[in-house]
Amino acid sequence: MVATRIQYLEYAIRDVVLPAMELERQGHEILKLNIGDPIAYDFDTPDHIKEALYRAVKEGHNGYANSQGDAPVREAVARREKRIHGTDIDPDKVIITAGLSEAIMFIYGALVENVRHILAPVPSYPLYISFGRVYGEKSTVYYCNEEKDWQPDLDDLQKRINEKTQAIVVINPNNPTGAVYPKKTLKEIVNLAGQHNIPIIADEIYDQLVYTDFTSFGEICGEVPCVVMNGLSKNHLAPGWRGGYMCFLNADELMEACNKQARNRLCAPTPIQYAMAAALDGPDDHIEETKKKLLPRRNLMYKRLNEIEGISCVEPKGAFYAFPKLENVKDDKRWVLELLKEKHVLTVFGSGFGSPGHFRLVYLPPLEVIDEAMDRIEEFMKKYEN
Amino acid sequence: MVATRIQYLEYAIRDVVLPAMELERQGHEILKLNIGDPIAYDFDTPDHIKEALYRAVKEGHNGYANSQGDAPVREAVARREKRIHGTDIDPDKVIITAGLSEAIMFIYGALVENVRHILAPVPSYPLYISFGRVYGEKSTVYYCNEEKDWQPDLDDLQKRINEKTQAIVVINPNNPTGAVYPKKTLKEIVNLAGQHNIPIIADEIYDQLVYTDFTSFGEICGEVPCVVMNGLSKNHLAPGWRGGYMCFLNADELMEACNKQARNRLCAPTPIQYAMAAALDGPDDHIEETKKKLLPRRNLMYKRLNEIEGISCVEPKGAFYAFPKLENVKDDKRWVLELLKEKHVLTVFGSGFGSPGHFRLVYLPPLEVIDEAMDRIEEFMKKYEN
Repeated sequence: MVATRIQYLEYAIRDVVLPAMELERQGHEILKLNIGDPIAYDFDTPDHIKEALYRAVKEGHNGYANSQGDAPVREAVARREKRIHGTDIDPDKVIITAGLSEAIMFIYGALVENVRHILAPVPSYPLYISFGRVYGEKSTVYYCNEEKDWQPDLDDLQKRINEKTQAIVVINPNNPTGAVYPKKTLKEIVNLAGQHNIPIIADEIYDQLVYTDFTSFGEICGEVPCVVMNGLSKNHLAPGWRGGYMCFLNADELMEACNKQARNRLCAPTPIQYAMAAALDGPDDHIEETKKKLLPRRNLMYKRLNEIEGISCVEPKGAFYAFPKLENVKDDKRWVLELLKEKHVLTVFGSGFGSPGHFRLVYLPPLEVIDEAMDRIEEFMKKYEN
Repeated sequence: MVATRIQYLEYAIRDVVLPAMELERQGHEILKLNIGDPIAYDFDTPDHIKEALYRAVKEGHNGYANSQGDAPVREAVARREKRIHGTDIDPDKVIITAGLSEAIMFIYGALVENVRHILAPVPSYPLYISFGRVYGEKSTVYYCNEEKDWQPDLDDLQKRINEKTQAIVVINPNNPTGAVYPKKTLKEIVNLAGQHNIPIIADEIYDQLVYTDFTSFGEICGEVPCVVMNGLSKNHLAPGWRGGYMCFLNADELMEACNKQARNRLCAPTPIQYAMAAALDGPDDHIEETKKKLLPRRNLMYKRLNEIEGISCVEPKGAFYAFPKLENVKDDKRWVLELLKEKHVLTVFGSGFGSPGHFRLVYLPPLEVIDEAMDRIEEFMKKYEN
């Protein structure tokens, strides 16, 4: 008999893939705007990072690494956070993970139990919701405000913190909304966390893919406990490699609880660790190139979405997602599946991120693909009936 | 506050490493017989597997893979199980994992809850004990019999199966004992599992590193549910790469529960997957070479251990471990730590595998290192007082 926890593992982004694969098997071509994987479009992992992976295995980094991550890799993380954000990170307070997914699992495994919970934002990356329920009695969230550019609703956040709250997750730049939070908002969150002496879990995996100013929590958390999480996947165009890291600031007990989980799986893949170290040291030219390609795509998608009757979209300021509202659609999952079936455009339903009445698209594809997808969504909306 | 489950995460193999590192910092050289990592000694990942990793990233396998594992990789797993064991595996019933550690986590996450448990062997690989307690109310075990070459005690196993038993773990070839089980024993386990309609979880990660006949559960399970688990780490001398796989036979519901967990972490590292596919297709020349190097090392360690007063050891038939008995030692952890401190020989205490009064050594090091370590253990035993 399968354990109860399994039923809580929903991953909307992957769940829409099965009907799309079925359509592909039938010979249809699908316009895929569903997955945050630049490699699926016209982006590629930079050559110097590929060479670094090859060098790692040639140089003998093939045995088990330190469970926490090999020291030279943790030192590269500290250098990177200093170089990009000016943050002082102690390499001994870094854990190297198999992608951010594993980091999120460690955090929830360490802190969530029965009614002891972590507050995750809604809209949310689905993993935060799943793990909240897998490890605890229920998922607990605070809301972001679509009317205010999807900024965290600080009043709502404050109201929801109680003596069982173990941490606050902030996803910045945000997946799925594309929001980037101003320093003032972040400072208020730091104050709130400080008042309650709970750590901020800062998911900053898109931190270099922004079209506005970005502040890392590491720069401003002061004495407040904070875990800054990042990795190879997005900035360095290597999502399949599963290279991630966590920097613990003022959070030694939490780090030890994560380290115990890390020891259980022996290590994050050793050659990937060393390739990540090389990537974090730069050069970062590919990041500017990526942003240059993405900006007109974002602009086109944003403009076209807002021209469609019944759809409105806040301008994404970072990452590579748009998260528009479906103004008169009752069932967003049905809408997404019908759009797929009728127009062969694959997106993800907003309720998979905790926000019914929305859907998520990536603006990673080339302009002509975005244009074609927007045409189809426009036609689809004209005929859609609830 | 840290969740209760964290306290159950003990990993003895890694826990002895900290005092050893401290001694190294003081300038001492440690003879490390503690960790099952051939790369730490005079073995290396074969060049053709390193090249396959490089080819994978050059050919563009850098994006997210299918959560279950990319189809060509799962097909390579099926070919390998057919080639080595004659087993028919459906590639659609394979999950690719980040090492066997992740596979074990999926199995326990899928099946263990409250008093619903999995029976793991003792002596045991520590992860089985940890996860039993992390996910369920207690760890549940059956015993292997040292007097009978560390074979599973089938009477004990039978007695311990009850209506809450969800699965039986069999580690064959065994870590830590080095035992390899005869086909007759395996068939009796299949019968038992069949009677109770519970799956066998077959950890076969050392299946090609044997000095006797080996039978895979896949060959003999018939209609009984079974999960055969294996990977890159040991046979292919790439433990740090974290390439693993699970083959599900007659266990669709369990597979789906594992797949749901797999979707949550997106994918096992994509380039590693493709390198594993190449490794599984062969050539396997390095395996014969490894065995040729290991056999005299095993023979030397086995002989010397049994010549030491107060130590006796069953002959290891596979893997690369010896698991001797300390006949008059009361506290095996203290013994191991004292041996480390006084003689700078690092081993692992048997209670970390559920078997107090024992310790585990690897016979991976060169003959002269084994000889030196045996000299030191012999001297140490002469003076040791409980």
